[in-house]
Amino acid sequence: MNAKVWLVGAGPGDPELLTLKAVRALQHAQVVMIDDLVNPAVLEHCPQARVIAVGKRGGCRSTPQAFIQRLMLRHARQGRCVVRLKGGDPCIFGRGGEEAAWLQGHGIEVELVNGITAGLAGATQCGISLTSRGVSRGVTLVTAHTQDDSELNWAALAQGGTTLVVYMGVARLEQIRQGLLQGGMAPHMPVAMIENASLPQQRECRSDVQGMVDDARAFGLCSPAILVIGEVVGVAQAQLMEWSAAG
Amino acid sequence: MNAKVWLVGAGPGDPELLTLKAVRALQHAQVVMIDDLVNPAVLEHCPQARVIAVGKRGGCRSTPQAFIQRLMLRHARQGRCVVRLKGGDPCIFGRGGEEAAWLQGHGIEVELVNGITAGLAGATQCGISLTSRGVSRGVTLVTAHTQDDSELNWAALAQGGTTLVVYMGVARLEQIRQGLLQGGMAPHMPVAMIENASLPQQRECRSDVQGMVDDARAFGLCSPAILVIGEVVGVAQAQLMEWSAAG
Repeated sequence: MNAKVWLVGAGPGDPELLTLKAVRALQHAQVVMIDDLVNPAVLEHCPQARVIAVGKRGGCRSTPQAFIQRLMLRHARQGRCVVRLKGGDPCIFGRGGEEAAWLQGHGIEVELVNGITAGLAGATQCGISLTSRGVSRGVTLVTAHTQDDSELNWAALAQGGTTLVVYMGVARLEQIRQGLLQGGMAPHMPVAMIENASLPQQRECRSDVQGMVDDARAFGLCSPAILVIGEVVGVAQAQLMEWSAAG
Repeated sequence: MNAKVWLVGAGPGDPELLTLKAVRALQHAQVVMIDDLVNPAVLEHCPQARVIAVGKRGGCRSTPQAFIQRLMLRHARQGRCVVRLKGGDPCIFGRGGEEAAWLQGHGIEVELVNGITAGLAGATQCGISLTSRGVSRGVTLVTAHTQDDSELNWAALAQGGTTLVVYMGVARLEQIRQGLLQGGMAPHMPVAMIENASLPQQRECRSDVQGMVDDARAFGLCSPAILVIGEVVGVAQAQLMEWSAAG
């Protein structure tokens, strides 16, 4: 395989949720740059590769983005097959598109490989049906972490009729709660807070918008976690069964 | 492997976007029930299985949902390992949660396996960065196809600050256009209409909200297709490059 950079989604954590394409990229890699949130178990597919940890966790000491990009560029220019492994999907809050554009602008061939994003996997593992037709029109993935600390349009998000999935929200639970309540979300709208989605150590805390901050504190909720907010969280098994055969 | 039903996402079309877990399920399957939208190439992983086509495409002659569910139940009760293969992710507009609840309610062990959903893969393949931080706060996946033909809250969706991805929208382009314009979406907001996401025959039609109906007609847009609506569709490569190293 030629010199090239693969920007690869490693999925939410369960190493079996890697795609076949991700495995192929790893098998051919000479250099693998691995993010904090990637389960190191996936490295079993690339025993031949030089592995470089390039953690970049919000708020912590981490490798600067510009350095990571220059490192990818240098290895690719030296003719190596480089895999950058990111947690989840590199194109969902993973800056895959920006990094691909930057590398291509420097003459490097790039391939993006989607992964299973943590929000969708976490909900599935907790038995939450994000798009159940009786109560949801779809699903909205947003991040609570922004460059400029600007707030989301919580009113529009609360009224869109979709289930909300919030990434990187643990440090901003109080702002999220306030935004949702001020935006018109019902105080008793159910919330699931899911830590370590899809991993054996996955934990889940059920609450509602009103109580989510206190409940998360009592539970000891830690990053990485996703929040699922919407009526689907409160739907009983029996109701889902009833809907199953309709239409 | 024991009698069990696996509800498995086959991904958007490219057979390499299957997960390792999906492959394991197929390798152990005795019966595989395959939906219309699944690429039959993935059946190479289950030469041992009996394959049953259970197409259920919107608006066409198709296998009724209740029949499909009874068929899964019958095979599982006869002690077989059953895989139901669905296009994309079974939990995103795929009724995976409802079917799982129904089967579990009948005493059957169920495992749900997420897949890469077509909307996210299609955008990636077209170089669209759905969550680019400069212009998007996230991504909203909705379906235009509903049980009761009720309209979506387009005003809220237009104002949420997220990129919109609309599934099953080809037959309802005019309603979508009207809803978005009446909801306050800018007439020149860029739109990408992506047919056969991730397959070799993928085609892409670029337009804007104002012109999407005429442009789709001239292009000959067919199902299955997804629509991507938002500023990210119009972002130039150069802009993405500039954002890449910031923050």
